[in-house]
Amino acid sequence: MTLSSPSSARQAEARRSSNALSHTAVTIEDAFWAPRLRTVRDNTLPTMYEQMKLNHYFDAEKRGWKRGMHPIPYVFWETDITKWVEAASLSLATHPDAKLDALLDETIEFIRSIQQPDGYLNLWFTEVEPEKRWSNMRDLHELYCAGHLIEASVAHFQGTGKRSLLDIVCRYADYLDRTFGLEEGKKRGYSGHPEIELALVKLYRATGEQRYLKLSQYFVDERGKQPHYFDQEARERGDTPENFWARTYEYNQSHLPVREQTEVVGHAVRAMYLYSAVADLVKEQYDEALFQAGERLWHHLVSKRLYITGGIGSTAKNEGFTEDYDLPNLTAYAESCASIGLAMWNHRLLQLDADSRYADLLERALYNGMLSGISLDGSKYFYVNPLESKGDHHRVGWFKCACCPPNIARTLMSLGQYVYTANDTDIFTHLYIQGTGKLSIAGRDVTLRQETHYPWDGAVSLAVTLAEPATFGLNLRIPGWCQDAQLSVNGETVALDQLQKGYARIEKRWQSGDQVVLNLTMPVARVYAHPDVREDINCVALQRGPLVYCLEGTDNAVPLHHIRLPEAATLESHFEPELLGGIAVIQAPATAVDSTDWSDTLYKTTPPQSHPHTLTAIPYYVWDQRQPGEMRVWIYTK
Amino acid sequence: MTLSSPSSARQAEARRSSNALSHTAVTIEDAFWAPRLRTVRDNTLPTMYEQMKLNHYFDAEKRGWKRGMHPIPYVFWETDITKWVEAASLSLATHPDAKLDALLDETIEFIRSIQQPDGYLNLWFTEVEPEKRWSNMRDLHELYCAGHLIEASVAHFQGTGKRSLLDIVCRYADYLDRTFGLEEGKKRGYSGHPEIELALVKLYRATGEQRYLKLSQYFVDERGKQPHYFDQEARERGDTPENFWARTYEYNQSHLPVREQTEVVGHAVRAMYLYSAVADLVKEQYDEALFQAGERLWHHLVSKRLYITGGIGSTAKNEGFTEDYDLPNLTAYAESCASIGLAMWNHRLLQLDADSRYADLLERALYNGMLSGISLDGSKYFYVNPLESKGDHHRVGWFKCACCPPNIARTLMSLGQYVYTANDTDIFTHLYIQGTGKLSIAGRDVTLRQETHYPWDGAVSLAVTLAEPATFGLNLRIPGWCQDAQLSVNGETVALDQLQKGYARIEKRWQSGDQVVLNLTMPVARVYAHPDVREDINCVALQRGPLVYCLEGTDNAVPLHHIRLPEAATLESHFEPELLGGIAVIQAPATAVDSTDWSDTLYKTTPPQSHPHTLTAIPYYVWDQRQPGEMRVWIYTK
Repeated sequence: MTLSSPSSARQAEARRSSNALSHTAVTIEDAFWAPRLRTVRDNTLPTMYEQMKLNHYFDAEKRGWKRGMHPIPYVFWETDITKWVEAASLSLATHPDAKLDALLDETIEFIRSIQQPDGYLNLWFTEVEPEKRWSNMRDLHELYCAGHLIEASVAHFQGTGKRSLLDIVCRYADYLDRTFGLEEGKKRGYSGHPEIELALVKLYRATGEQRYLKLSQYFVDERGKQPHYFDQEARERGDTPENFWARTYEYNQSHLPVREQTEVVGHAVRAMYLYSAVADLVKEQYDEALFQAGERLWHHLVSKRLYITGGIGSTAKNEGFTEDYDLPNLTAYAESCASIGLAMWNHRLLQLDADSRYADLLERALYNGMLSGISLDGSKYFYVNPLESKGDHHRVGWFKCACCPPNIARTLMSLGQYVYTANDTDIFTHLYIQGTGKLSIAGRDVTLRQETHYPWDGAVSLAVTLAEPATFGLNLRIPGWCQDAQLSVNGETVALDQLQKGYARIEKRWQSGDQVVLNLTMPVARVYAHPDVREDINCVALQRGPLVYCLEGTDNAVPLHHIRLPEAATLESHFEPELLGGIAVIQAPATAVDSTDWSDTLYKTTPPQSHPHTLTAIPYYVWDQRQPGEMRVWIYTK
Repeated sequence: MTLSSPSSARQAEARRSSNALSHTAVTIEDAFWAPRLRTVRDNTLPTMYEQMKLNHYFDAEKRGWKRGMHPIPYVFWETDITKWVEAASLSLATHPDAKLDALLDETIEFIRSIQQPDGYLNLWFTEVEPEKRWSNMRDLHELYCAGHLIEASVAHFQGTGKRSLLDIVCRYADYLDRTFGLEEGKKRGYSGHPEIELALVKLYRATGEQRYLKLSQYFVDERGKQPHYFDQEARERGDTPENFWARTYEYNQSHLPVREQTEVVGHAVRAMYLYSAVADLVKEQYDEALFQAGERLWHHLVSKRLYITGGIGSTAKNEGFTEDYDLPNLTAYAESCASIGLAMWNHRLLQLDADSRYADLLERALYNGMLSGISLDGSKYFYVNPLESKGDHHRVGWFKCACCPPNIARTLMSLGQYVYTANDTDIFTHLYIQGTGKLSIAGRDVTLRQETHYPWDGAVSLAVTLAEPATFGLNLRIPGWCQDAQLSVNGETVALDQLQKGYARIEKRWQSGDQVVLNLTMPVARVYAHPDVREDINCVALQRGPLVYCLEGTDNAVPLHHIRLPEAATLESHFEPELLGGIAVIQAPATAVDSTDWSDTLYKTTPPQSHPHTLTAIPYYVWDQRQPGEMRVWIYTK
């Protein structure tokens, strides 16, 4: 049996656009993700709500909060609430919970109480600085808040069937539509922190209201035009544009119109949310210039500015990008939200074009940079995800800027959406997670059942169930990390010599009981960085399947920067079911540099000596859950 | 012939205390330093004066400068003037110059015009904020200014014989003595930036006035006591001590009494000036606790926090020290003034105890970290001396905080003082610089003539001239960098098997015509850093004689971080008389990593390939004087 080729290149291209399944259509029933999702429901959502209460998120007015007061949360604190609403609503969609449902109703009533007669709705600009509405769109996150509110409302509507929040939000969106745009009398503003753009596409998709799509397109198109809105706005409030604290509009990606941008710059989360909206808009109405801009930016990111963990953002200074190949490990920013944004963007690109490059990156971000952001017990978070630690970096229960915790929660609660996409002729399997996906292809229901111990083992079996036989293409992603895969359909081997953009496409008349078995050989791989990544010179990272590994002090009784892993050393992995929720541990015979004879000397004319050391590595996502100590991803080879 | 042993350990110890020769007693006539000193006279001193004029150093009052005005120099701008006076006076002492003499007189008249009726003398607190005298000794450098004024006055007196500045300064010092101290009614303050302490010892030595020595001792002893003066002072001016911008009194070494300090911390220049004063005080009246504190601090510095260039200070944040082994190269601070301070301190320690460890460090600082601070033409300066540059670090003509240029000038103008020390029984030769030293040993004049091409060649011949034969010990430093030295006296070989604290001591009845020949074999050495200096892992530095080398982009047509110098590669050096004033260049067969096949890839499962590259290195002190470009001291070995 051989892989099916499309009958023409054009047919093939058309076929590659597909839509993601809703997370409600996919069950997660594996040993890797399912316990994490359960923890979010059982622990994260309740403790997060507690934290918001403790931090007076709902009684700002009563407490007379003013700007500059200490300690009050950031101007955009309402987005913690709305992301929590989104996460809780996503959970309700698959796991009904009357108590949570009631708490959501109560929270929505609180939100309703803020809404102004004209539809405007923002906590800060109602309770703290009502006179400053739309006075500083560059910095004050007003439309960013609106975006998360909109995403919450769509999730709530879809998860509960209730229109309570959606109706509130549509009133607000209508107000926004009356306020912003090119038409005479409207403001020509847009948001310093993108988010509204992708949210309006979601709202359009949920309601069918074209105005929302048009408004999103306006925000994306207007961004970065001259005369620059943020300049004008600054002058209007008596400020000098040149005094912008971030110094450059690259910070918020408004230095140029998006269509003219060629490099990923500035604040990483802002960039990811903006590019996600760009992909959304291209999906809704194809636009070559916008598509090419996204491609350029994606290519720049992955070839110059991406951590191996799927983290992005090299410095805390701008919470974002710096220079090409500047990827410091100890001081990496790699905000949890930025990895989430990277997953969001690649998820959208995947729907434009089922190219496994996007799925590889989606997987890298989800299994590493995003997942490291939350503790196994679901109650502590990393904001920053460095690739090296001297032992002083630990997850905590909350942040003054608490964007990451609810962002991780909503990502986990919507995990199912990332597994499959489908169109009229093809199903694409992007991620390998045990569970069941219910699809519709050309009007026919298809059920796909995955059985796998992924990511610990690369064997995946897919069982197809459908009412009556039907012909379609089933596309299975062969991950970029996999050098050796075997595929069979009903026991018959399928040669994997003609992948289509990284997918093995099997077109046949499928019938219930068809069994597809994929085996992705999963040895421990050594990964090297481009020679211009100065911090990784003479270093290797270990990866097994989609998981990037790291060394922790608790497993290695020598300073981690003393460890040398020879090129020839055999890397072995074994599964430890009792350790950290069950993980595959990597071990290898290595050496450790000796510093004992150096105690009083800083410089010598002889190089340091070494002694044998058995190296132990664990998956990066699970570090900092035992004895506090050092960590490093990049291991010296020499 | 063998080296002479002291008759008892106690005798040996006593013999090791010695006094530095004045710079006027030593001529510098070599090809390395003499041209640099000439350039300071011909170019640095005049252009520096021009810069001070251009920056309105002498007409602040007329211009109505106020604090916070932009751009005005820092509160301690007068120290640029007084350090210039010091440098110019040092020059006059050996090279009379009527025009410069007149300019000094004019400058001293300006200084006199500032002096208040009570003796107080400070530019800022006379012309800008007269109401704030002694209100913020923590931050505002008042006594630091006083210290540099005192040093200038001593140099002027010694260089010209004129008492004009010395008399002004003694009036001020008397005022300070009436103002500060333990006695009832006196302030218990001391300076946030040490300098007054060592200056008062100088003034004591010049005038014999014991009160100045006592006041210096008070300032050193009072520092860091509880209740903390800077706390009290902050409260008195309505400030909160906890709001101290530097966050910790480690910044100015007042976190503990000096006797209790164990680690070099905080601002590097402050530390060096303080420890210099500590050594001065121990020299004047031996104090075991103070001596031991200095030893501890010295040991901590050299074993944990010293750059190979003799630079100190790992970060711009506090212009100072961070953590043990934290010695980043690209972001090294290594202020020129800090290397000067290191030389000052070790010069003083050397007079307490002629131990070549101190002379090694003095030499390292002078030939590398200090000398890199000034361009070959004497008109441009580094404030910061990193050990790696991406090509954007260049010397400039002046700084808003211009402490380094005149500090380098006064250091070069006083270079002669570092060469010899002597006591009644011994002469110590610390540095090898061609020229003549005129010493007095037990009342008898001795002339030592050095002939050498040091630092390019390790052959040194010393000719002794004296009126009649005399017995004394001539001690020749065998530098720590030298693994193979040969010594002869009048053609007779002296075995070097019994060095005394790093010095070969030859005791004999010396007579005119005696000839000592020392040969210090000077191959290119590979130097390795302690394995805990993370930035230098897998790296080697090249040193030849006292000179640390570096790679520059202009000599190496590949990115410098691509270069790999194999352990086995032969390092060759040759002298290039036309290059950069004449330097020995190091070359070696190396390799360069290839990044061509990586252009679009950030991570790969195969390590990068290499091609042959001939490495060229030049002395660090002379970098950034050709095509602007990259530089690095630490070269990857693998």
